[in-house]
Amino acid sequence: MLYDNLAVNEQGHLTVGGLDTVALAEEFGAPLYVLDEDKLRENCRTYVQALRENMPEGSYPLFAGKALCFKGLYLVLNEEGMGADVVSPGEIYTALAGGFPAEKLYFHGNNKTDEDIAYALDSHVGCFIVDNHQELARLDEAAGVRGIRQRVLLRVTPGIDPHTLQAINTGRIDCQFGVPIETGQAARFVADALSRKNLIVEGFHSHIGSQIFEAEPFCDAVDILLDFAQAMRQAHGFVAETLNLGGGFGVRYLESDPVVDIPGNIRALAQHLRQGCAEKDYPVPKVLLEPGRSIVANAGLTLYRVGGIKTIEGYRSYVTVNGGMTDNPRYALYKAPYTVVPASRMNDAREVTCTVAGRCCESGDLIQENIQLPEMQRDDLLAVLTTGAYNFTMASNYNRLCRPALVMVRNGKARLAVRRQTFADLVACDL
Amino acid sequence: MLYDNLAVNEQGHLTVGGLDTVALAEEFGAPLYVLDEDKLRENCRTYVQALRENMPEGSYPLFAGKALCFKGLYLVLNEEGMGADVVSPGEIYTALAGGFPAEKLYFHGNNKTDEDIAYALDSHVGCFIVDNHQELARLDEAAGVRGIRQRVLLRVTPGIDPHTLQAINTGRIDCQFGVPIETGQAARFVADALSRKNLIVEGFHSHIGSQIFEAEPFCDAVDILLDFAQAMRQAHGFVAETLNLGGGFGVRYLESDPVVDIPGNIRALAQHLRQGCAEKDYPVPKVLLEPGRSIVANAGLTLYRVGGIKTIEGYRSYVTVNGGMTDNPRYALYKAPYTVVPASRMNDAREVTCTVAGRCCESGDLIQENIQLPEMQRDDLLAVLTTGAYNFTMASNYNRLCRPALVMVRNGKARLAVRRQTFADLVACDL
Repeated sequence: MLYDNLAVNEQGHLTVGGLDTVALAEEFGAPLYVLDEDKLRENCRTYVQALRENMPEGSYPLFAGKALCFKGLYLVLNEEGMGADVVSPGEIYTALAGGFPAEKLYFHGNNKTDEDIAYALDSHVGCFIVDNHQELARLDEAAGVRGIRQRVLLRVTPGIDPHTLQAINTGRIDCQFGVPIETGQAARFVADALSRKNLIVEGFHSHIGSQIFEAEPFCDAVDILLDFAQAMRQAHGFVAETLNLGGGFGVRYLESDPVVDIPGNIRALAQHLRQGCAEKDYPVPKVLLEPGRSIVANAGLTLYRVGGIKTIEGYRSYVTVNGGMTDNPRYALYKAPYTVVPASRMNDAREVTCTVAGRCCESGDLIQENIQLPEMQRDDLLAVLTTGAYNFTMASNYNRLCRPALVMVRNGKARLAVRRQTFADLVACDL
Repeated sequence: MLYDNLAVNEQGHLTVGGLDTVALAEEFGAPLYVLDEDKLRENCRTYVQALRENMPEGSYPLFAGKALCFKGLYLVLNEEGMGADVVSPGEIYTALAGGFPAEKLYFHGNNKTDEDIAYALDSHVGCFIVDNHQELARLDEAAGVRGIRQRVLLRVTPGIDPHTLQAINTGRIDCQFGVPIETGQAARFVADALSRKNLIVEGFHSHIGSQIFEAEPFCDAVDILLDFAQAMRQAHGFVAETLNLGGGFGVRYLESDPVVDIPGNIRALAQHLRQGCAEKDYPVPKVLLEPGRSIVANAGLTLYRVGGIKTIEGYRSYVTVNGGMTDNPRYALYKAPYTVVPASRMNDAREVTCTVAGRCCESGDLIQENIQLPEMQRDDLLAVLTTGAYNFTMASNYNRLCRPALVMVRNGKARLAVRRQTFADLVACDL
């Protein structure tokens, strides 16, 4: 099986964290997001420990809430010693409502509005990751009005292309996030930031992309950031005490994907950083990382009820499920690969090549194409694995479908963490 | 301007239905969906009238709720004599909550669950558009239990490719909707349906695709459907009293798109249908159409506040706005074209080539690339035109952004029809 928390029980049913998925779907309904809290905590500990063991004191991981965000999650993250990267007032609100300490929030975004800035300052978020000059000016002014000196990191783009999907690749120079180093614009950005009276510049941030399976692209980024930091020290006497290297470690969606060695990669990265600093005689900065996908993706799966099989003779077979692009738009958006398994008949031979289609009135509503399943029947259960990231958060109410519930599994018990939407929720804003 | 309800006032601001968009954004906030109710009603009347004048009595248009769906809309649709195509219990609930009569609802979907079927029967929807054999069996049984004989249309696929985007093209044979004629499967589907005691088969449904600009592909579909209907009459003595030809008439998103002559196309289609029926000595059936996009798209626009311009020297300029793929995912999904105009400075020369980026932490969050705008400043207003269809309904809370409000404009007055989501709405289901 793709991950060690998944197994098959005597009834031939898929289990997650020891619980029968068929029983989960019966108890909580389908479609259903299932999040294995034990796996989630294990993933948090891997990062926290690797950073603590290999990087300077004060280094720690920030969970990227865009991957998954609901109140109950932040309690777990806090218990596990994570910080959090938030990208909107809505994420700040959710984190705080979940009891997360404001000082461990890092506020991201390429277009923070004046209202966002005010909200974040008034919520006392620990640090802003400033994206551009306009934000510097507005933030400096708003902090001044409040008599605050706000901690900030400056987002720069190192111009690294880790050869991933264009849509989720943000380290290249031509992108809407941050300020590029290569063009000389980042140097002016630093000068601007250092001239602001109400900001405390703590260092730099870069995010090079997603689904990266080894340390090398991060090491390349470190090289560029250290050269840049050295130049800024020479120009302004400014020494960065923090480097935030963003997120991007990959996740195994298919058996054919590599297993990512997070501790090994962080060790390699730490070595590379220390060596680079030694060569430049630069004080080794604290390191922050922003894992999202690699914390939650493999802790999640989605359960769907099958509506039926439709075989277009001479063409292909469709298995339809009672969810789709509304709860997981990633195939429609990126043709994202997923492993799909027949949760209610795991031991049956998978002899039918088929396409799993959602229930939206849209041809593009597919979950996966050309996969192997047994002959599925109406009411069978299908599981899509590794859906913990960018499914719940990207869900829509297209076709006025209700967002599924999210159940957390821990120590062999399941509890509802987010309830299913109701029809009343759908029209809650309709006047 | 792209449509006749748009103009520019003395202040150089874009107006819609005579109202200043800058004033609208100030009153209701941004991002903001604006729906011109006068234009919406005009579009409804065009269809209602053209079908009434050219097609047999009982022919009328059904609005496809997947394009736009909120309570207040159904009041207008009902007043204008429209029926409605609904694709989920959520859409049924919304239509009924908006005072729409159940008997004018046509229930679509490739995977109606048992709960959906029960809900629709108990809501007394007028007609089911049955997609497949499994649904026939479950619906027949559920109707029987309730002592109902349910009216149905049978969805068949004529195998027409109107050469549009694959993702929104559903008339080709290899698709998850309906039952194909060419393979002989549709004939068996009809036999199955006619054998069901609790169903009244009224005719056939087909949907050939989207963004179709002339009558021809619909005429091709009519030819195939009439041949099929004739064969079914010969086999079973069954005469279809209704043909539902689905939706698909195109909409002008860009100045370079053609203007679609809806009445002219419907006239041509009626002529073609009558001639085909005459040749076969087949009673001319009532015709239903399912316009969605062509009813609401050009009645809508979206207003965004600009965050700033970011020029990556040697690459390109980004204009960032305070919305994006969360309120309009169509560029991320299909690279859908839109006309973007500088609502707050319509008379300024548009000398900057730029890309409009949303505020999500995702490179793919773009509204449009390489368009011409004036040098925009933070707090300027941008309008994206023709967003009345598939924007509000496809919205998500990705990055925990709140869904914008929707304002309806009529007779020079604006009223809130859907309020903006609040942070409390975002966590309403979080336990």
